[in-house]
Amino acid sequence: MMRNLAMLTDLYEFSMAGGFHRELPKTRGVFDIFYRNVPDHGSFVVAAGLAQVVDVLRDFHFDASDIAYLRGLKLYDDDFLAYLADFKLDCTVTAVAEGTPVFPREPLLTVEGPLDQVQLLETVLLNIVNHQSLIATKARRITFAAAGRPVMEFGARRAQGPDAAIYGTRAAIIGGAASTSNVLAAKAFGIPAAGTMAHSWVEAFPSELAAFRSWAKQYPDNAALLVDTYDVLASGVPNAIIVFKELLAAGHKPVGIRIDSGDITKLAKLARRQLDAAGLPDVKITASNALDEYVIPALLAEGAPLDNFGIGEKLITSSSSPVLSGVYKLAATRTNGVLKPKIKVSASIEKTTLPGIKQTYRLYRPGSCEAFADVIALADEQLTAPLAVVNSNPLTTHKRIVLTAFDAQPLSAPVPLDQPAPSKVFAIQRFAKTKLAELPSETQRLVNPDTYTVYVTQQLADLQQQLMDEAKRD
Amino acid sequence: MMRNLAMLTDLYEFSMAGGFHRELPKTRGVFDIFYRNVPDHGSFVVAAGLAQVVDVLRDFHFDASDIAYLRGLKLYDDDFLAYLADFKLDCTVTAVAEGTPVFPREPLLTVEGPLDQVQLLETVLLNIVNHQSLIATKARRITFAAAGRPVMEFGARRAQGPDAAIYGTRAAIIGGAASTSNVLAAKAFGIPAAGTMAHSWVEAFPSELAAFRSWAKQYPDNAALLVDTYDVLASGVPNAIIVFKELLAAGHKPVGIRIDSGDITKLAKLARRQLDAAGLPDVKITASNALDEYVIPALLAEGAPLDNFGIGEKLITSSSSPVLSGVYKLAATRTNGVLKPKIKVSASIEKTTLPGIKQTYRLYRPGSCEAFADVIALADEQLTAPLAVVNSNPLTTHKRIVLTAFDAQPLSAPVPLDQPAPSKVFAIQRFAKTKLAELPSETQRLVNPDTYTVYVTQQLADLQQQLMDEAKRD
Repeated sequence: MMRNLAMLTDLYEFSMAGGFHRELPKTRGVFDIFYRNVPDHGSFVVAAGLAQVVDVLRDFHFDASDIAYLRGLKLYDDDFLAYLADFKLDCTVTAVAEGTPVFPREPLLTVEGPLDQVQLLETVLLNIVNHQSLIATKARRITFAAAGRPVMEFGARRAQGPDAAIYGTRAAIIGGAASTSNVLAAKAFGIPAAGTMAHSWVEAFPSELAAFRSWAKQYPDNAALLVDTYDVLASGVPNAIIVFKELLAAGHKPVGIRIDSGDITKLAKLARRQLDAAGLPDVKITASNALDEYVIPALLAEGAPLDNFGIGEKLITSSSSPVLSGVYKLAATRTNGVLKPKIKVSASIEKTTLPGIKQTYRLYRPGSCEAFADVIALADEQLTAPLAVVNSNPLTTHKRIVLTAFDAQPLSAPVPLDQPAPSKVFAIQRFAKTKLAELPSETQRLVNPDTYTVYVTQQLADLQQQLMDEAKRD
Repeated sequence: MMRNLAMLTDLYEFSMAGGFHRELPKTRGVFDIFYRNVPDHGSFVVAAGLAQVVDVLRDFHFDASDIAYLRGLKLYDDDFLAYLADFKLDCTVTAVAEGTPVFPREPLLTVEGPLDQVQLLETVLLNIVNHQSLIATKARRITFAAAGRPVMEFGARRAQGPDAAIYGTRAAIIGGAASTSNVLAAKAFGIPAAGTMAHSWVEAFPSELAAFRSWAKQYPDNAALLVDTYDVLASGVPNAIIVFKELLAAGHKPVGIRIDSGDITKLAKLARRQLDAAGLPDVKITASNALDEYVIPALLAEGAPLDNFGIGEKLITSSSSPVLSGVYKLAATRTNGVLKPKIKVSASIEKTTLPGIKQTYRLYRPGSCEAFADVIALADEQLTAPLAVVNSNPLTTHKRIVLTAFDAQPLSAPVPLDQPAPSKVFAIQRFAKTKLAELPSETQRLVNPDTYTVYVTQQLADLQQQLMDEAKRD
C-alpha cells in the first residue's frame, strides 16, 4: 500500500547527495535517528514505523518522470542523474524493534551506506519514524490512563490527511489501542473494526425509537446504540432499553450504548442506573467526546461507570503535543574501510551528538525483568561488570559511576532488507506491553514521570570529549 | 497520485449505509461540511482540499478484496455487498472555491445523493477538507506575519506521515507560502523547490570552508550557505564571505546565508553587518529555527534584518492548534422529489445546525470590494434589499436587522465531477489573496481578531426555530 516515496525528500538532500556523489564518492556515512524531547513531557517514546521504513527502502527508485523533473531543475549533472535513474540501494539498517520504549538520545534507527544515499534517505525516514512513534507514544499514554478498558481509535476524520489516518491507526494499535473505526486501516493491518452509529442515522428516521429498531433489525448481534441525539436520559437510554429487551426476547445479546456529548460522568452514572434497573447489567457504556489521558483519569476517579473509550482527534493527531522532533545526525564516516566517528558540536552541550556506531543496552537487576537504567555504548565494546559509565543527561553532573551488577540486553539489531519487516500489529503491541512492564512504574506515570537513567559508557564519553576538543582546535 | 480512498471510512458509515440502503432506498440526503471553532483563535479558515475531494469522488469504487473483507465482517447482506461491488456514484457537490476565507457555520462543501452514498463519503471528505483547510489557514497566518517576506515550507520530516507532507505542502501554498523543500510535492503541484544544505554537509568535510567551497563549485548560482554548524559569527559568516567573493570574482551571484539556531535577531543583525562590510549587501538572510506567526513579528519588531523564512513543523502540523474540527451534518432529505429540511438539535444552541439547502453570500459595500458581513440564506431565497436577517452567532442576541444596501456574491458553486477540479496552486493562492484583501483588516489580525459578522436570513432563522419547536413536540 505504501507508494514509492523516494521523491519525498527535501531538495537539499538531492543537492548534498549530488555533491557527495561527486566529491566524496568513496565515503560511506552512518546516520542515527534519535530524539531529544518527549511529547507531553513523558519520559519515553514508543518506537514505531520500521515496517514502513523497510517497505520504502525495498522499493526505493526514481522513475523516468522523476529524473526528467530533477533534470529540469538545472542543478544536477548528467552523471548524478544517471546514477539516480539506475539507483541501487546499498545501505544497511540497524534499529530497535517496533514497540520498544526508547529514551532521549538513544538511536531508534541507524543507517549506513554511501554518503549520497544515506543523505537522500533522511527526510522520508524521519517522516515515517517521527509520525508513527508520536502516535504510538500517545496511544500508550491514553491506554495507560484507560487502565485496562479497551480504547477504540476513532480519529480518521480529523487526522492530518489519509496517511495520518491509516498509519496513525497502525501506530495507535502498537501503543495499545484495541480496535479502530478506520476500515481501510483495519483491513490493511488486521485490526478489529469497531463502531456504532452517527447522529445522522437517528435523524434520518421519524423517531429515535424507529431508528434504534431499524438498527437492531439490521445488526441484531452488533447493537451498540448512540443515545445522545436528543436527550440521553429522557429519550436515548429509555428507547435503547426498549430495543435491547426486544433483542433479548428474540435471543440476541445487546452490546451497549455510546455517549458522545454532555457531562460524561453524570450521564454514565444515571444511564448505568437505568440500564441496571431494566435488568441489563451486561450492556456496556462507551464514552467518546474529546477524551484523552488527562480527562479519562478524572472521569474514572469520579466513579464514571465506563467500559470502553472511543478516542478521536486527540489520539490520531497527538493534539496536545503534535510533533516528535526526531533528528538524523551523522555519527561516523567510513572511507576505504576506516571508520571515523563524527560529532555535531553545538553551543548547547545538550545538542552535541554522540559519535560513532553505538548500541543501547537495557540494564536489568540480575536475574530479573526489572530494568533500572539504559547505557549507550560503542557497538564494539564488551559490556561486562565492572562497567565505568557517566550519566548521559548533560544537565546532570558527569559524575563517574561504576556499575557492578546487571544483566544487559541490546535494544538494536540489524534489519534485513531482503524481506518485509514483521508487521503483525498485535504481536508488536504484545511486545511493547512486555517491554513497558519492565520499566519502573514511576517512569510510566503520565504527569511528572521520574527520569529514567540513561548512561553512556566512559569509553563513549571519552570519545565525545576527544572529538569536542579536536573541534575546538580546528 | 491520490489512491482510491473509498475504504478510508469509519465502520459505522458502512453500517449506516447498509441500513439506509435497505430501509430508506429512495431517500436522498444533503450533508454540509462546516466548522465551529477557528484554529489559533483566528476569525476564519482558508478552505482547501476540494481538488483532492474531486479526485477521490471520480475514482470511488470497491475492489474485489475490499468486498471480500467487508463480507468477512459478517455484518452486511449480499444485496448491499453487490451494490458496493458495482458502486456508481450518484452524488452532486456544491462547494466554496479553494482559497476562500470561510467563517464558522458557513458550509464549505455540500453533497447530495442517495442516503447510503452520502453517508459513506463522510469520513474521507472530512479527512481531506479538515487537513488541508487547517494547513492553509496556518500558512495564511504565518505569511501574514512575514509581511511580504517569502515563506518557504520546510516541514516534511515532521509532518504526520507522507500525505501530511505532500498535501500539507499543497495547502501551505494555497495559504500563502512561496516555495517548499519537499521535492515530491514540488513536482506534483508545480511549486518551486527550495533549500540550502544541512549540517551534515559541513561536517562531512575537513573544514567548513572546504564544505562551502565544494558547494559553490557544484551549485555556483545556487549558493545558499548554512552558517551555524560551528559558530555563526566567528566562522560561518566569515567563511561564507570568502566563498561569496570567490563566486563574484568568477561571475556568479551569491544567494544567501541561513541561520538555524541561536538568537535569530542578534545573529542576523551581526551577520548583516559583516556581509555589508564585505560589500555583499545583496546576500539574503534566511531564518529557520522553530518559527511561527507568534515569533516572526517579534523578530521583525526588533529589527532583525531577515529576508526569508523557512518554516518546518509549526506550519506542516499547525502545531499550536493541530486540529480543524469540521463536521458533516445532515441538512435535508429528499424523498420522491420532496425536500425535507433537517436539524440536529443540541443542548447547546451553538451546536444546533442550520437546516435546508443553503447558500452563503459575502456582502460588500455597494460598488466596492469591501466585504462587511456574510449572510447564510436558503438556496432558493432572493437576496434583495431590504433583507431581514439575524446574527448567526447564537451567543449574541437574535436581534432583527434589516440590511438595505449591499452587493451580494455567492460563495458556493456546483462542482463538476466529470473533470478534475482546478488545482493550479498559485492560481488558488492568488484567488485567496484577493478574497483576503476584501476582508476588514481587523478580521485578519492574528491575535484577538474582530469577529466578522455572519448573519442568517430571517427566513432561515424561522425555519430553524420551526424545526426546533417540532423536535421538542416529538
